[in-house]
Amino acid sequence: MTPADFYRGRRVMVTGGLGFIGSNLAHRLLALGADVLLVDSLIPDYGGNLHNIAGIEDRVRVNVADVRQASTMNYLVKDRDVIFNLAGQVSHIDSMRDPFTDLEINCRSQLTILEACRHHNPGAKVVYASTRQIYGKPESLPVTERHLVRPTDVNGINKAAGEYYHLVYNNVFHVRACALRLTNIYGPRQLLRHNRQGFIGWFIRMALEDQEIQVFGDGSQVRDFVYVDDAVEAFLLAGATDSVNGEALNVGGDEHIAHRDLVTLLVQAAGSGRYRLVEWPPEKKAIDIGSFYADSSLFKTRTGWSPRVGLAEGLRRTLDYYRPRMAHYV
Amino acid sequence: MTPADFYRGRRVMVTGGLGFIGSNLAHRLLALGADVLLVDSLIPDYGGNLHNIAGIEDRVRVNVADVRQASTMNYLVKDRDVIFNLAGQVSHIDSMRDPFTDLEINCRSQLTILEACRHHNPGAKVVYASTRQIYGKPESLPVTERHLVRPTDVNGINKAAGEYYHLVYNNVFHVRACALRLTNIYGPRQLLRHNRQGFIGWFIRMALEDQEIQVFGDGSQVRDFVYVDDAVEAFLLAGATDSVNGEALNVGGDEHIAHRDLVTLLVQAAGSGRYRLVEWPPEKKAIDIGSFYADSSLFKTRTGWSPRVGLAEGLRRTLDYYRPRMAHYV
Repeated sequence: MTPADFYRGRRVMVTGGLGFIGSNLAHRLLALGADVLLVDSLIPDYGGNLHNIAGIEDRVRVNVADVRQASTMNYLVKDRDVIFNLAGQVSHIDSMRDPFTDLEINCRSQLTILEACRHHNPGAKVVYASTRQIYGKPESLPVTERHLVRPTDVNGINKAAGEYYHLVYNNVFHVRACALRLTNIYGPRQLLRHNRQGFIGWFIRMALEDQEIQVFGDGSQVRDFVYVDDAVEAFLLAGATDSVNGEALNVGGDEHIAHRDLVTLLVQAAGSGRYRLVEWPPEKKAIDIGSFYADSSLFKTRTGWSPRVGLAEGLRRTLDYYRPRMAHYV
Repeated sequence: MTPADFYRGRRVMVTGGLGFIGSNLAHRLLALGADVLLVDSLIPDYGGNLHNIAGIEDRVRVNVADVRQASTMNYLVKDRDVIFNLAGQVSHIDSMRDPFTDLEINCRSQLTILEACRHHNPGAKVVYASTRQIYGKPESLPVTERHLVRPTDVNGINKAAGEYYHLVYNNVFHVRACALRLTNIYGPRQLLRHNRQGFIGWFIRMALEDQEIQVFGDGSQVRDFVYVDDAVEAFLLAGATDSVNGEALNVGGDEHIAHRDLVTLLVQAAGSGRYRLVEWPPEKKAIDIGSFYADSSLFKTRTGWSPRVGLAEGLRRTLDYYRPRMAHYV
């Protein structure tokens, strides 16, 4: 069954639904004919943004709520067929300054959602947004799912726990669940307000504002990038595919590129901005993981997924999205 | 430096200090001339037992406190040279019934202790009691530290997170820390009151009370066992050895034995009790990991540790300990 068939009339919930990936997922789900409930706490600086659903706000249901709040989640999960579980605190730096908030949002809230399903909707399928951060500094590249989980920061640890909970609830309580270990996702509707949620949104903002982009170290660190539409497709496929239940699978891009080459491409595409190599800030260096790119062949084999939007095209679309909308994102 | 030299006059704290391993550690530390502070919440059914320090109660300091309580921990860690961090909720079954309490005790409290050290005593060395449970069902035996972490229950997940926190605080905040992944520890001062904290204490009680020991399945599942004095020695060595900082290392026994053979040995040593093979209870089967034994060669190489007390001798000593003291443990 294609996602197009699968999601027509399907009751779907997206936690973190006003955030970056969540809101892109909402647009696509709506286009596929799903009944879309978006849950978001709108905590300032986390990425939730009502502008992200501009144009569809009358056709989705928005429920402002914190996923840490058990009775709310118990109610909201009740009639949902598929739950895309994307709510989270995503700043590594914040997690090291305030590990307890990260714990509450990335660990406790996952248990809250899964307990809600276990007791109030055991038939739901849950797809969890995990992260390549759980691997820590790679021992070899590309990184497969056989690589040890060795997070370098508190956020990575709590995300790993959140992922493991989903697998255990699948295996023990039969709440069907899987996790996608996402690499670097970029595209429209990402937070640009500050630079504590990964570098790519910030780089895009700096380029659009014709400012200097600071690249740490010698800029040789490699990443793979996934355009958000491709990430959305990965979530849709995972939600519709029961053979991935109980698994945590890499979802990464086919193109690997060094930071300095990425920035060159970005500045070129934007026609503005410039970059400069600077020393690593110590608190970032302490949790840096060097180069990283994932082997996503397992997920591709299971679901037929493959990323379709190349980096040059993706950056162009991203810049085109933000140019007339910067006021909503800065 | 031998542990004997290292611990003389050393200010040591043991969380979970009235529990099974913690109290045995206390006895040994006192014998080595350490200044011993035991912190324990004495939560009923968790394993803390004042009788465990009978004979040394006037020479150790006992502070009843919950490791989840931040201001208390901030105060208590202040002047401690070494912290043996053993407080925890250790029942797998309880963690599946009430995952939030397990989260609070096995995740949040670890952050509380590590934050206390980070801000109030960054010079402390912390040794964390982790568990083989984090590996889940082994892919091959013996299990080395290269085996993936794939817990089969919430307790295993939260213990894994607790372990990872220690490694991150070592690597990022330079609070020296390491983790010991313990297999099945047995011996004097273990909780016998109920059967939700692993099977061996319960088997010992059943044997001593001349009752029937129920062995699940065909009894062929293999485990390695470590007598508690050997586990205590492992903690002492880890606390005194800086080359293990930032690492999580297996601490398992050299003897592997199937449940039914263990029980035969036990019944023989006790001269009482009997066993019967019974069907797996479904909630236990769902989180069972099959056979398990660890490869501890990394820890042995690093510290010179090796287990000295064989299973037959260990069981004999254990039975001798409990026989006149059953009233304090049931």
